[in-house]
Amino acid sequence: MSATSNSPELFEPLNPPPRLLMGPGPINCDPRVLHAMAMPPLGHSDPTFWRYMDETMVLLRQLFRTENHWSFLVNGSARAGIEALMISIIAPGDRVLVPIFGRFGHLLTEIAERCGAETSTIEVEWGAVFDPAQIDAAIQKHQPKLVALVHGDTSTTTVQPLAEIGPICRRHGAFLFVDATATLGGMPFETDTWQIDAVAAGLQKCLSGPPGTALVSLNERVVEAIATRQHIEHGIAPADFEPPLGPKIQSNYLDIPMLMKWWSGTRLPHHTEATPMLYAARECARIALADGLETSFGRHQLSSNALTAGLEAMNLELFGDRAHKMPNVTGVLIPNGIDGEAVRRDMLDCFGIEIGTSFGPLQGKIWRIGTMGYNCRRQNVLICLAALETALLRRGYPARAGAAVEAALGVYDVWDARSTPAALAN
Amino acid sequence: MSATSNSPELFEPLNPPPRLLMGPGPINCDPRVLHAMAMPPLGHSDPTFWRYMDETMVLLRQLFRTENHWSFLVNGSARAGIEALMISIIAPGDRVLVPIFGRFGHLLTEIAERCGAETSTIEVEWGAVFDPAQIDAAIQKHQPKLVALVHGDTSTTTVQPLAEIGPICRRHGAFLFVDATATLGGMPFETDTWQIDAVAAGLQKCLSGPPGTALVSLNERVVEAIATRQHIEHGIAPADFEPPLGPKIQSNYLDIPMLMKWWSGTRLPHHTEATPMLYAARECARIALADGLETSFGRHQLSSNALTAGLEAMNLELFGDRAHKMPNVTGVLIPNGIDGEAVRRDMLDCFGIEIGTSFGPLQGKIWRIGTMGYNCRRQNVLICLAALETALLRRGYPARAGAAVEAALGVYDVWDARSTPAALAN
Repeated sequence: MSATSNSPELFEPLNPPPRLLMGPGPINCDPRVLHAMAMPPLGHSDPTFWRYMDETMVLLRQLFRTENHWSFLVNGSARAGIEALMISIIAPGDRVLVPIFGRFGHLLTEIAERCGAETSTIEVEWGAVFDPAQIDAAIQKHQPKLVALVHGDTSTTTVQPLAEIGPICRRHGAFLFVDATATLGGMPFETDTWQIDAVAAGLQKCLSGPPGTALVSLNERVVEAIATRQHIEHGIAPADFEPPLGPKIQSNYLDIPMLMKWWSGTRLPHHTEATPMLYAARECARIALADGLETSFGRHQLSSNALTAGLEAMNLELFGDRAHKMPNVTGVLIPNGIDGEAVRRDMLDCFGIEIGTSFGPLQGKIWRIGTMGYNCRRQNVLICLAALETALLRRGYPARAGAAVEAALGVYDVWDARSTPAALAN
Repeated sequence: MSATSNSPELFEPLNPPPRLLMGPGPINCDPRVLHAMAMPPLGHSDPTFWRYMDETMVLLRQLFRTENHWSFLVNGSARAGIEALMISIIAPGDRVLVPIFGRFGHLLTEIAERCGAETSTIEVEWGAVFDPAQIDAAIQKHQPKLVALVHGDTSTTTVQPLAEIGPICRRHGAFLFVDATATLGGMPFETDTWQIDAVAAGLQKCLSGPPGTALVSLNERVVEAIATRQHIEHGIAPADFEPPLGPKIQSNYLDIPMLMKWWSGTRLPHHTEATPMLYAARECARIALADGLETSFGRHQLSSNALTAGLEAMNLELFGDRAHKMPNVTGVLIPNGIDGEAVRRDMLDCFGIEIGTSFGPLQGKIWRIGTMGYNCRRQNVLICLAALETALLRRGYPARAGAAVEAALGVYDVWDARSTPAALAN
């Protein structure tokens, strides 16, 4: 037994091979974010630590395009933020509607069920999105308290337009929760204008950061609804604390009202904040805002245009509804007779480039190529196309040598000729 | 509204002031761990990433002193690991017993209640611990499925002896869960020998790492008990998946059986693993094991001895049952007439040293001084004593100048004279 032997089993020092992560996320972090994580930690009653928390809230509001005071972090993956909001809003027996257009709609359904919700779903085929009228009709039929919806579902590479959904939900008295993990920072997202009540995201897609913390924002409608479930832990509650009237939230770790107390001026302790993730979130937001959100959206769209032009020049077929394609992830049908996994392996082994496959009905049917955040730049699009061409040729696919990169360069040339700011073509 | 203004509010680049964190945690990270976090991330289907996951499991087994295959990470604070294990073991209506001897016993109670458990508690005054016979009697009375117990409760600085508790639980057919957040790496912890069924910990105390991931381990008894709740998300479940017979675990994010599938050879995806936290955990474990656990325990005990000698030389009174004092945190009664918060402020403002106060009945009554992990070393004990002496003198407390450091040095001298390995006196 290793635990009792005299010489412990230690393995080699950490030495990850260099990779270009062009899958659906996580992606390579901006080096400034990696450096931020390595900054010395502070104690959690340190005035500077509290200032960083407050500053992060201000930065997140700008990312989410909201005036919501309650814009903060939930330590865990993006999924932890999703579950925190849903478990805090949903009391057992509440009705929840989930329109499903990919894997992550199933995840929202799954979470709603575990919250004890009476859950209804509507579905479209993977690759499509909903017409707002379909969601309107489903709300009228099911009368949900909460509609939970994914913005961009990386499993299908499609993005659900949201501008009309918020007003529909509000008209019927439902809350709208949106999972913006895969889109925040990569395309317009308007929390307030679109009347989204609660939203969760992560850093590891278009925000150039690591996985490990969720970003959440909720408006006053939600705050009011969950206030009746506001609870304080016995070990730290003041003697005169009156227990709330509403049902207790069924998670302590993911209890949004308790997290709000920690992110408020009272700093009532909850869990030990993940300092490196606070530093990372603050730095990711600063970088995105300093670049300018519009600039970032433009860069993601340009990369998508160049990548798709290159793929089509190889006679590859894109997956999904082109009118609703996410700019940061591109689905490609694996050609008949080509071993998709062998191509992915060649990409990784020969070039150090990772691309993804997908889940469920799309597993082994499509590749997914990400162009997001720090990795969303011309050189990566071109190297990825060149590498894919090579890998396909090795497997006998009749790609015309050089065509993909030429086609992509053509997109960049047109863009440059329009004398758009150079930053866009980075 | 800042979100729509043309110039975003960005704040200054991250620049945390240098601090010596001598509170109850988090502590200063070992620089090797900070560097590990800043290593380039890998994709989550990368063979090297999977190897790092497997290696981390081997390393955690050695830290926990267990042969439990299922020793892995839960992304979130230590509390996330605690809740994951409890919520996966407890089905609504199950009986749970929590012996409470500080704040974190209240936390376990709180979590058990939110899991829908029928929860019983027994309590001793803060500063004391339980006699095993008290726990035995309570188990016989309440017949719990699970006993949930804190090992070292930093709120009171006392540690509950565990060696007899596991066998008592097993005799009565109860599972034993232990929260070892504040002790793992700082004093002996024997998961298997003590017959502990499930255990959770963090990196940010005696393991010299950051807050942000939990370490968990569970044995085959627990695996068997939760197997009936094994569930697979609809979006990724194979078509022939049969839903389990047991009640669904009421959290998706903290579902241990699903995490086990991700940490198994099948790598069935769950959440996006927090890469920097995997790197950090692997490095923390490597450092602790390379130093040697016994050496680390000795260093924590020596620091505790030196610190307490210094505090007593200032005629300060220690808090809590000395026979069961944690070696890594020391509670000191704030002397009558001294403004405890002013002293803490002076320590921080003049010396950059953070010490803690406590919670609930002990808030403002004691200071808590931590000597753990990377910070557990002679120079820190001495600088902390000298700074505390200065701060006390400024507030009119009659400390005899130099006495504290002399007393601590005396402890180190005796230790050195015994010609114990030099590493211990670091």
